[in-house]
Amino acid sequence: MSQTTEIQYYHHGRFRVSGGVLPDAITAYCTYGDPKNPCIVFPTCYGGKLDNNGLLGQTYLVGEDKVLDPRKYYVVTFALFSNGESSSPSNTPAPYNGPYFPAVSYEDNIRAQYTVLTEKLGIKKVFCAIGFSMGGQQAYYWPVMYPDYVERYIPVCGSARTSPHNKCFLEGPKAALKASKDFQDGHYTTTPQHGIRAFGRAYSAWAYSQTWFREKQYLYYGIYSDLNDFLREDWEAGFLNGWDANDLLTLLHTWQVADVSLIRDGGDFAKCLGAIKARGLIMPCKTDLYFTPEDSEVEMTHLTNARLVVIDSIWGHMAGGGSNIEDDKFLQAEVKKFLEEP
Amino acid sequence: MSQTTEIQYYHHGRFRVSGGVLPDAITAYCTYGDPKNPCIVFPTCYGGKLDNNGLLGQTYLVGEDKVLDPRKYYVVTFALFSNGESSSPSNTPAPYNGPYFPAVSYEDNIRAQYTVLTEKLGIKKVFCAIGFSMGGQQAYYWPVMYPDYVERYIPVCGSARTSPHNKCFLEGPKAALKASKDFQDGHYTTTPQHGIRAFGRAYSAWAYSQTWFREKQYLYYGIYSDLNDFLREDWEAGFLNGWDANDLLTLLHTWQVADVSLIRDGGDFAKCLGAIKARGLIMPCKTDLYFTPEDSEVEMTHLTNARLVVIDSIWGHMAGGGSNIEDDKFLQAEVKKFLEEP
Repeated sequence: MSQTTEIQYYHHGRFRVSGGVLPDAITAYCTYGDPKNPCIVFPTCYGGKLDNNGLLGQTYLVGEDKVLDPRKYYVVTFALFSNGESSSPSNTPAPYNGPYFPAVSYEDNIRAQYTVLTEKLGIKKVFCAIGFSMGGQQAYYWPVMYPDYVERYIPVCGSARTSPHNKCFLEGPKAALKASKDFQDGHYTTTPQHGIRAFGRAYSAWAYSQTWFREKQYLYYGIYSDLNDFLREDWEAGFLNGWDANDLLTLLHTWQVADVSLIRDGGDFAKCLGAIKARGLIMPCKTDLYFTPEDSEVEMTHLTNARLVVIDSIWGHMAGGGSNIEDDKFLQAEVKKFLEEP
Repeated sequence: MSQTTEIQYYHHGRFRVSGGVLPDAITAYCTYGDPKNPCIVFPTCYGGKLDNNGLLGQTYLVGEDKVLDPRKYYVVTFALFSNGESSSPSNTPAPYNGPYFPAVSYEDNIRAQYTVLTEKLGIKKVFCAIGFSMGGQQAYYWPVMYPDYVERYIPVCGSARTSPHNKCFLEGPKAALKASKDFQDGHYTTTPQHGIRAFGRAYSAWAYSQTWFREKQYLYYGIYSDLNDFLREDWEAGFLNGWDANDLLTLLHTWQVADVSLIRDGGDFAKCLGAIKARGLIMPCKTDLYFTPEDSEVEMTHLTNARLVVIDSIWGHMAGGGSNIEDDKFLQAEVKKFLEEP
């Protein structure tokens, strides 16, 4: 397993975001390799941290034995605002702490990442922006926001805008957490366990396919004894360990309002995607229940310089997140092929 | 729209259920037509009431202009225990009131329905048991529990056992309600609005397909202005009006533990389904996210006297519940064909 390099923190100072302002916005990031090599940007997903090794960390794709090989590429991983590493409700001082943290958009995130790359790391061009899930949505935002700066992009189990169904699914865990007896409208003083556990349960069944459950693949890791054990350890404890409730909600908001066509095309989705110059590799999973392959197919009808490669897996959304060896191998092979194309 | 006939209440007296006992269990039911005609049993679904006219009531299939025509059949609709009409947490006196209501299984329900049919209504044979969703699961229980009593059965968007994924999806709304700030472990004295609203939101995205949302079919009824309006009026208000929180949870439990093969075959699913003598019409919807057509296909490999007809619709689970004119027409035509077969 590859190790995370030391996390670095870029201070933007006063920084406008969609819902207000952050007096000193901080972007957390890691770099791997030599800045003279082609730069690959790899932002985090929902539930993702820079310092997670393995699942929902970034190192499942980064390392000398991985497709994002630091001997060949200069890999920069970015933490999303609200992930607990970049500026978030949980780590921002008053008056923007906790429930007072402003709404943040992908646009704000990508603008901040661009600043780090250009102002701090001196990167003249991004060879490729790649990401999984919310990271995949950022991979779409990159070439739309900085068309002359990004050459290639790879959304894995992501989309260029959050579909109505995806928004609706997110209402479930969100409502569960907000209605919970210990969330206290975000003014909790100890971890709102009831709320976070309910959040995890309301999320869990969306992350894999029905077939995955039918085949009891939650036994795959050889850790959990049954479905309830899996829900308790993977989904309740998973969010209880290291996730703050307000962070979960503001990050979810960033996801819900995603739509690249609102950047400058007034919601004209076809026009916005049609104008993307960068070369894309669009990689949904066949059984993803919320970033569905059908949404990718709709996107493909507008994109002029992209290839669709579907991950044929029963792992649903998690297929693209390093959840299992087989899908990971397929993903890395396709990404490698794409990156090495002249 | 057909009208519900007067609801009748059968008192079982002391009645054993899977989780204990009910000192005077009550089964609510309606009858339509002449008892001399072939008898069709049509139990309720989750969220279903005998006295709902239209959606999630029974009258979408019952009436002179419907497939269950009271001039041709003697139709008996049954309310599930915990639906608020039959014995439920909300209507049972102490000491089995509210959170003290015992767990109830489908077996308990069908045994109670059998008693009403045989002891009260003098029915010698059921021509067909039909139901949607939890009603479809009951349609499976009927020929397994009373093989010589039931001639035909039609599970619509149902299954013979609740799949692991289906169980897991139900954990979401359940956890949302139980963790909510006003549920008070079932000891609420006023309606736990926060909990029920969160329950509705955590349920909503499962009920239709992703395509349905993509096409904004929530505008179909011409009532709701947008997704949030739909969630508020259909899913929050839908459960707030007439649904008790403890009822929702005990009814959900009945659903989660469903498995016909536990009745006498010790969990041998193939053996149990293989032994069903009655003729079946298995009608899943192609895009149902929790009673998936794949589960029906697995069932078909074991059934020896059944036909699979898939509802080809984007309405997901709701396709079988009278949600829209087109699917309803298809459903009724297929049911009619099946019922009229010699």
